[in-house]
Amino acid sequence: MKDKLTIIKIGGKVIDQEELLDQFLVEFSKIEGKKILIHGGGKIASEKGALLGVQAKLVEGRRITDKDTLEVVTMVYGGLVNKNIVAKLQSNGVNALGLSGADANILKAVRRPVKSIDYGFVGDVRKEEVNTDITSNFLEASLCPVVCALTHDGQGNLLNTNADTMASIIASSLSERFEVKLLFCFEQPGVLEDFEKQLVIEKLTNESYQDYKSNGVIVDGMIPKLDNAFDAIQNGVNSVRIGAFSDLAQLIEGYVGTRITN
Amino acid sequence: MKDKLTIIKIGGKVIDQEELLDQFLVEFSKIEGKKILIHGGGKIASEKGALLGVQAKLVEGRRITDKDTLEVVTMVYGGLVNKNIVAKLQSNGVNALGLSGADANILKAVRRPVKSIDYGFVGDVRKEEVNTDITSNFLEASLCPVVCALTHDGQGNLLNTNADTMASIIASSLSERFEVKLLFCFEQPGVLEDFEKQLVIEKLTNESYQDYKSNGVIVDGMIPKLDNAFDAIQNGVNSVRIGAFSDLAQLIEGYVGTRITN
Repeated sequence: MKDKLTIIKIGGKVIDQEELLDQFLVEFSKIEGKKILIHGGGKIASEKGALLGVQAKLVEGRRITDKDTLEVVTMVYGGLVNKNIVAKLQSNGVNALGLSGADANILKAVRRPVKSIDYGFVGDVRKEEVNTDITSNFLEASLCPVVCALTHDGQGNLLNTNADTMASIIASSLSERFEVKLLFCFEQPGVLEDFEKQLVIEKLTNESYQDYKSNGVIVDGMIPKLDNAFDAIQNGVNSVRIGAFSDLAQLIEGYVGTRITN
Repeated sequence: MKDKLTIIKIGGKVIDQEELLDQFLVEFSKIEGKKILIHGGGKIASEKGALLGVQAKLVEGRRITDKDTLEVVTMVYGGLVNKNIVAKLQSNGVNALGLSGADANILKAVRRPVKSIDYGFVGDVRKEEVNTDITSNFLEASLCPVVCALTHDGQGNLLNTNADTMASIIASSLSERFEVKLLFCFEQPGVLEDFEKQLVIEKLTNESYQDYKSNGVIVDGMIPKLDNAFDAIQNGVNSVRIGAFSDLAQLIEGYVGTRITN
């Protein structure tokens, strides 16, 4: 029988509001067994970038990671956010180990090819590139990897990488060795059918997902997030759920949030 | 017979000038066997701090790490400098693993007690607090720890910590398991007897060190660095040498630099 592994991706306010983060990390620390935390930090990066005089660059509405922006996200994701989470988890008795994809080469990426847009230092990742050996070694040594949204190209460059996608492929690749539960946590109580009423869709199949998209119920940033969630469930992850970071214990038990199924 | 372990601490220009860093890392990558790299990044931290509106605070001539300064060094040491070194080493075929003292709890510190001055978030470290088990595990797994000048207090706070001192106590504690060679690398070709003539002191005993201090030949920042070097040699480290990062291969072989002996 495979060992259980819980992988949680956090994003949004929980990262930049210290009190929310502390509360979340206390709950996270209570999870028994092997676990991995994956985080971004985009809002803090934008704030620090503005202070450093690095303007967000958009081409055709898409964010571009130039050299200055890469420097900012390296400081914020790899340094400020990651090391603070690690120190806080240590104080909760969790032996956290902060990692970018470059550390121990846990995740190598390919710089996104230039088609109509040059996204700059942005990494595209595949589950075949997850270093499952070393990641498993860390887990077996009772370490809790805390992974930030940075990878590397193997040629000395760091690459800004989508944290949802990293969570999805890390979960998929580790599902060969572990029984993996993957949770995407953010502000909302789940994928919403009605934003005003905060009505949560309890279960989302690929079929109903397509319907919700056609009807315009599921739009914008929720689409790539759900694509990552469906990729995970279709690639061996045992359980995928989306919900609020403020309700972690209930979400892990499956009492709240949106369940993603085949 | 103990395995060999080379521990190198870098500081100064090599960290903030990309070309120098690249050259150094190529040479570092050629070192055979187990190795650890330890770095600061004070100059970049001062630059980024100034851009972020964080002024260096001095009390009685001593630098203070307030909350804002801690944030800057966390971004610069833990993020910008550390992750870039790791990515570059990976491209040289070295399986680097970036660490602060909080990661895997490799080094817990005590916040410096307030006597006449409150240094703020500054950590004092002891060799007994180095987590030699996990550090040895990383080395046995062919990982190369890249350690930045941050520790933690075990209560959720990161602490700014002197990189020379970290190198000294990490080397001392690991000398129980390994035959350790410790090198402090900076701009100068070694400890200088005459700055104008760049005359290097080839060998420094504790006795000659005291003489050079009395005569005013060795002054200022070189004193705490040498105190750390002598601490290491007096605590089981097999070989301690101080010299130029630009001459690493010769320094390792013992052909150049200043040798520290009992």
